[in-house]
Amino acid sequence: MAVTDEGISTEELQLAQRNSGMPLEALRWPLTPLGLHYLLIHYDIPQVDADAWRLEVGGRVERPMTLSLDDLKARERVDVAVTMECAGNGRAALEPRPVSQPWLNGAVGTAKWTGTPLEPLLREAGLAADALEVLFTGLDRGVEGGEPQAYERSLTLSEALDGEAILAWAINDTPLPPQHGFPLRLVVPGWYGMTNVKWLARITVLDAPFEGYQQMHGYRMRRSEDELGEPVTRMVPRALMLPPGVPDFMTRKRFVPAGPNRLEGRAWSGLGPITRVEVSADGGASWEDAELGEAPGPHAWRGWSFAWEAAPGEHELCCRATDAAGNAQPLEPPWNLGGYSNNAVQRIPVEVEA
Amino acid sequence: MAVTDEGISTEELQLAQRNSGMPLEALRWPLTPLGLHYLLIHYDIPQVDADAWRLEVGGRVERPMTLSLDDLKARERVDVAVTMECAGNGRAALEPRPVSQPWLNGAVGTAKWTGTPLEPLLREAGLAADALEVLFTGLDRGVEGGEPQAYERSLTLSEALDGEAILAWAINDTPLPPQHGFPLRLVVPGWYGMTNVKWLARITVLDAPFEGYQQMHGYRMRRSEDELGEPVTRMVPRALMLPPGVPDFMTRKRFVPAGPNRLEGRAWSGLGPITRVEVSADGGASWEDAELGEAPGPHAWRGWSFAWEAAPGEHELCCRATDAAGNAQPLEPPWNLGGYSNNAVQRIPVEVEA
Repeated sequence: MAVTDEGISTEELQLAQRNSGMPLEALRWPLTPLGLHYLLIHYDIPQVDADAWRLEVGGRVERPMTLSLDDLKARERVDVAVTMECAGNGRAALEPRPVSQPWLNGAVGTAKWTGTPLEPLLREAGLAADALEVLFTGLDRGVEGGEPQAYERSLTLSEALDGEAILAWAINDTPLPPQHGFPLRLVVPGWYGMTNVKWLARITVLDAPFEGYQQMHGYRMRRSEDELGEPVTRMVPRALMLPPGVPDFMTRKRFVPAGPNRLEGRAWSGLGPITRVEVSADGGASWEDAELGEAPGPHAWRGWSFAWEAAPGEHELCCRATDAAGNAQPLEPPWNLGGYSNNAVQRIPVEVEA
Repeated sequence: MAVTDEGISTEELQLAQRNSGMPLEALRWPLTPLGLHYLLIHYDIPQVDADAWRLEVGGRVERPMTLSLDDLKARERVDVAVTMECAGNGRAALEPRPVSQPWLNGAVGTAKWTGTPLEPLLREAGLAADALEVLFTGLDRGVEGGEPQAYERSLTLSEALDGEAILAWAINDTPLPPQHGFPLRLVVPGWYGMTNVKWLARITVLDAPFEGYQQMHGYRMRRSEDELGEPVTRMVPRALMLPPGVPDFMTRKRFVPAGPNRLEGRAWSGLGPITRVEVSADGGASWEDAELGEAPGPHAWRGWSFAWEAAPGEHELCCRATDAAGNAQPLEPPWNLGGYSNNAVQRIPVEVEA
């Protein structure tokens, strides 16, 4: 993976055009309206004939299964609100910049997913005594790092069986649209987006660790190409603020009226519930606690708000989250070669009008 | 408006992250699935309370009107399939590059819009004898070119009364989502996207030409800042190809199997029906006619296909459209200060595997 100090290249721009961030004003909705949730699509969105489509469950299982969408919908059904974030969110703020999808901070969204739990399905298939990992293979194909591949990622057996992962066929009470993985995708609450394999075709129980590209090369925390690094897994905490006032079209700088303003936003972590959000109106020099609000579910972002008395002049607003495990956001971006997990605090320049 | 030879800046990237292009594989659908249609939002997506919302019709009319969403839905109802493209589509391919939303070529989509025709509503309000233009004002507010403003654009009286414009409350049989202008937007078939004012709050009949920012400064064909220029109006012709084969994640280069391939795409023009699409497999040196297919309506893109016998090696695929008015796409980008209407032919590098 290359790094650069230069402006965004045409190749990065091609990715930025086809992958879409959530406009930050969409933080006002506890569930992100359809079409505003972030999208990161490695290859092409495949076209799938739902009638012909089947999910194959095989590998190290006692009873391989072939399931239609109706078969899946006849199983136990759950709804779960999940905040999902791309592991590369914040990548474009790193210096030098890792060359890939150039996210600033909008690669997030929260949806209500409807599906069936993964664990009972795996139990029903019967795990062999030597079962070690569960591999999820999508229908999307492409070339990455020089290797032709279908998009696929694994979970360890304990991660797959912890009762939280679901196989989802609906988002916000609507059948999955093509870009969210029609007809079926994996949803693993708390994990970064790459885990949630879309256009799911096959679940394969393995007796050895999966060594495919997206597990052993992509999505690892490395400082250099010759390092294996630790895998990227759960979302580290982040708070975002709904940009106050109105924007300048080009710079996105905000213009805010003087006087009392209610700053609002949402915060999440895959490592524990959010226990604290702080706000700074002076670029991080001083911080005050925000008031914590509701979350649309235990795996979704939590609202926060803060009463700010805006004095005329230029200000830099910041917010930062802390979770129950004690993780807090850093002021400066933590660098790694893939540009993953950059949860440095958001900074919003505002001009308060006299 | 600035121009530059440098890589995309952080400001441009902020726009690219919040505005989203249509991934080109979505060309396979005659109506673009919700969430894949392009989005260009100048300021912020406003939150609108549909119960409290009213459309005001005033200015140089005999009978000013205040209409609820239910009032509008009780009027004549039409469905129309419309291909909509941002006037800035192709901007990022210009050299030097106009600094604004850096579109490559994905700023397009086709939707089925449901609404009520504009003309009978204006007739019912009663146009004053000195009526000259009709101004459409949205609820979205921001600063552009140093001017605080609501987004607003006008049509001449004849354009507003030609029978084609509608006031739409649904897209693809779904109530407008926030990002498409909930609860009501203007849709003017054949015109570039900036015409189709979202979050519509007010229709004002004017007795003089509207001189607001988006009419007199933005969306004009100019070579320099001191020139007024001609207004940007209807879409010039463009054909796009569904990228064949599979992509490389980073470069988006395509890998295609050798032998017979069916190339497919869609073509549109706001200046007349599409009468011809040509394909080149050698970077524009030679061209052959594609087969024209169906359109989902008279204001929507027309499908095309082309049988290509792919020989191993490197190729550059191109396509170009011609409309009934005789307009054809240029091989080289036509430059202007705002980066509007760049309909230079699409070029897709492909590697055919042996």
